[in-house]
Amino acid sequence: MRIAIALFDGAEELDFAGPWEVLAYWAGEVSKDPVEVTTVAATLDPITAAKGLRVIPEHTLHDAGPVDVFLMPGGRGTRALLGVDEPLHVALRAMAGGGTLMTSVCTGSLVYAAAGLLRNRPATTYWSAFDELLALDPTIKPCPDDRFVDDGDVITSAGVSAGIDMALHLVVRLAGEDAARATKRGIQYDPQPPV
Amino acid sequence: MRIAIALFDGAEELDFAGPWEVLAYWAGEVSKDPVEVTTVAATLDPITAAKGLRVIPEHTLHDAGPVDVFLMPGGRGTRALLGVDEPLHVALRAMAGGGTLMTSVCTGSLVYAAAGLLRNRPATTYWSAFDELLALDPTIKPCPDDRFVDDGDVITSAGVSAGIDMALHLVVRLAGEDAARATKRGIQYDPQPPV
Repeated sequence: MRIAIALFDGAEELDFAGPWEVLAYWAGEVSKDPVEVTTVAATLDPITAAKGLRVIPEHTLHDAGPVDVFLMPGGRGTRALLGVDEPLHVALRAMAGGGTLMTSVCTGSLVYAAAGLLRNRPATTYWSAFDELLALDPTIKPCPDDRFVDDGDVITSAGVSAGIDMALHLVVRLAGEDAARATKRGIQYDPQPPV
Repeated sequence: MRIAIALFDGAEELDFAGPWEVLAYWAGEVSKDPVEVTTVAATLDPITAAKGLRVIPEHTLHDAGPVDVFLMPGGRGTRALLGVDEPLHVALRAMAGGGTLMTSVCTGSLVYAAAGLLRNRPATTYWSAFDELLALDPTIKPCPDDRFVDDGDVITSAGVSAGIDMALHLVVRLAGEDAARATKRGIQYDPQPPV
């Protein structure tokens, strides 16, 4: 099993690092079957994330090989990926058409909407981005009250930290509740927000 | 105000990326006063984090300038930073002695313990690392039931994801509850673990 997390300039840090932690912990410490979690980007150059963290991608989208699960983070950098001629959309449609489970965090769903992956589907995004989402595709059924929306072969999440919850749900789907509980324990995910 | 987050080979990804997101969101989107959040490492070479993510530090510890808040992540890479001659300990003691607020996530507290920063203090760490913590300094009062322990000029957190809660607490301390609530809303931190 191969899980690829997209990186791009302006990707929000926790959007990719939260699911990365959950999925890589599961892959390395919990899963009995081999699971690879990797990062993909347009090139192998370091990306500068939304808040300035610079991260080096492991693969380009084109040399990544078959991907079972794809994860598209959000962040202000998504706005540069919404054009009708955006080459990423071709790759996204090819993956979706080839059976890759397509997942997104935060405004990553805007890119899926622009690529046509969310037509007539329920979906979520960052709390303030529903207008943008529906402007890209008015057939989407917005789900602002859901932490994540599992529509079978496409899963979208709410903003930023919601990717952690969605990734744990992914582990439930891929490996069952015991594996997800062991992963949760591994990252000591018993959240206690102080405000 | 200057906040420096340490990076090193084997640092656990969410240990630094969670607080990074919280603090950088606050700094960039909420704070009325200028706040800089940066990363520091022994050199400017990319570090390879515990699960394989490669990140480029912004500063070395020596060229970082004055630091108001320092954050030490955990991860298996901390075990290489516990030796009695570890140069990092000198820098940590200098910061603590100079009034820097010293914070840690997960097994980052092991490095603080090895540097002598936790003598006779209450502290926490990753749930399975209390034996290691007390072996480094038996005067520490272990607090395994706390999400984070604020002992004034030193704050330690429980494992991995606990750094997000500790960072929000830091925002409360540095800027008040309204700023922390705005930051929490900004990263849509309404956790709903599915297991």
